Amino acid sequence: MPRPVSAADLQAALARRHRPAKPSNHTSPCHQRVLAIDPALRRTGWAVIEGGASNPRALAWGTITNAAKLSTAACLVEIHRQLVEIIGNHRPEVCAIESTIFVQSMRTAITLGMSSGACLIAAGSAGLPIFQYAPREIKQAVVGRGGAQKSQVAFMMRSLLGLRETPAADAADAMAVAITHLQSHNAEAIGTSPRRRL
Amino acid sequence: MPRPVSAADLQAALARRHRPAKPSNHTSPCHQRVLAIDPALRRTGWAVIEGGASNPRALAWGTITNAAKLSTAACLVEIHRQLVEIIGNHRPEVCAIESTIFVQSMRTAITLGMSSGACLIAAGSAGLPIFQYAPREIKQAVVGRGGAQKSQVAFMMRSLLGLRETPAADAADAMAVAITHLQSHNAEAIGTSPRRRL
Repeated sequence: MPRPVSAADLQAALARRHRPAKPSNHTSPCHQRVLAIDPALRRTGWAVIEGGASNPRALAWGTITNAAKLSTAACLVEIHRQLVEIIGNHRPEVCAIESTIFVQSMRTAITLGMSSGACLIAAGSAGLPIFQYAPREIKQAVVGRGGAQKSQVAFMMRSLLGLRETPAADAADAMAVAITHLQSHNAEAIGTSPRRRL
Repeated sequence: MPRPVSAADLQAALARRHRPAKPSNHTSPCHQRVLAIDPALRRTGWAVIEGGASNPRALAWGTITNAAKLSTAACLVEIHRQLVEIIGNHRPEVCAIESTIFVQSMRTAITLGMSSGACLIAAGSAGLPIFQYAPREIKQAVVGRGGAQKSQVAFMMRSLLGLRETPAADAADAMAVAITHLQSHNAEAIGTSPRRRL
């Protein structure tokens, strides 16, 4: 059982991040506009984050919410439709998506696969390169501990991105996917991380 | 372990089907044009079948094949794109899709969910009502035994639909989904079967 992430851990993680950033350069290969997605049938979090590993900026974020009475197919159509609109509005260069390794049952795995599929079709049809990251890897990247809770991730996203309010949990998770990608992409650009392109 | 389906079983199933059909009526609620799909990432079988339970006719069928080198996202985009095209060309009124209950692993379940999701988005975006049927239920409906093999399903489809050649396995599976739906829909129209709408 891993030790829970404490307030001190979060402060330490923030302090590591608040080191003065190098001057940003929009033509740098490390600078990207990322559409990040945390897919789920009823609540898909999304965020458009621009910048590099040291200077990320949140341009837009939200949650695609589907009512419990909606059929599976109707939910998928809505996820796909809204993401196509988001891509059209914000013109991201790349898509980063949370992958899933462990779920409770085959039925949940199939449903989650469907939701992820809706995101991949929207991003893939727009020609975006797609990268995936596992939940533990995302928490490790943004909080410094793989066992971090959703509220801790949201707290970190508010601090890191300088948001006025703590973002909703699903959107915060998507922001964390974007931050993970920007760090990973930065690492890749300097040759220390392999590509994990979907 | 169920007894394998024998040639005699197939002949008996065919004989049951070859009873003279009642005169067909295109305005009957039992008469439909069905897009049926057997989803899979690399080989998605599809068929457009028109008619009722007793007089089905194959209008078009095929397999959406994705090369092994294609990424998951590219496969999903292709499945979605081709199905949108098929729906535009053949104007089905309803979609019937093979569901999955048991798969080997969580990874397979997620991949299959993604493939099914691509089909559901194409059909759902076109406003088609969608019905799903389990593999065992489909085999039971078309061969008379839940444990039938793919080659036996293809043989039955060739006979039942009066095709010149035995269809490829994936397209034959999709045809069988359509036949199952038409039988079920017929049963539903006469009040003996519940709706299993997705």
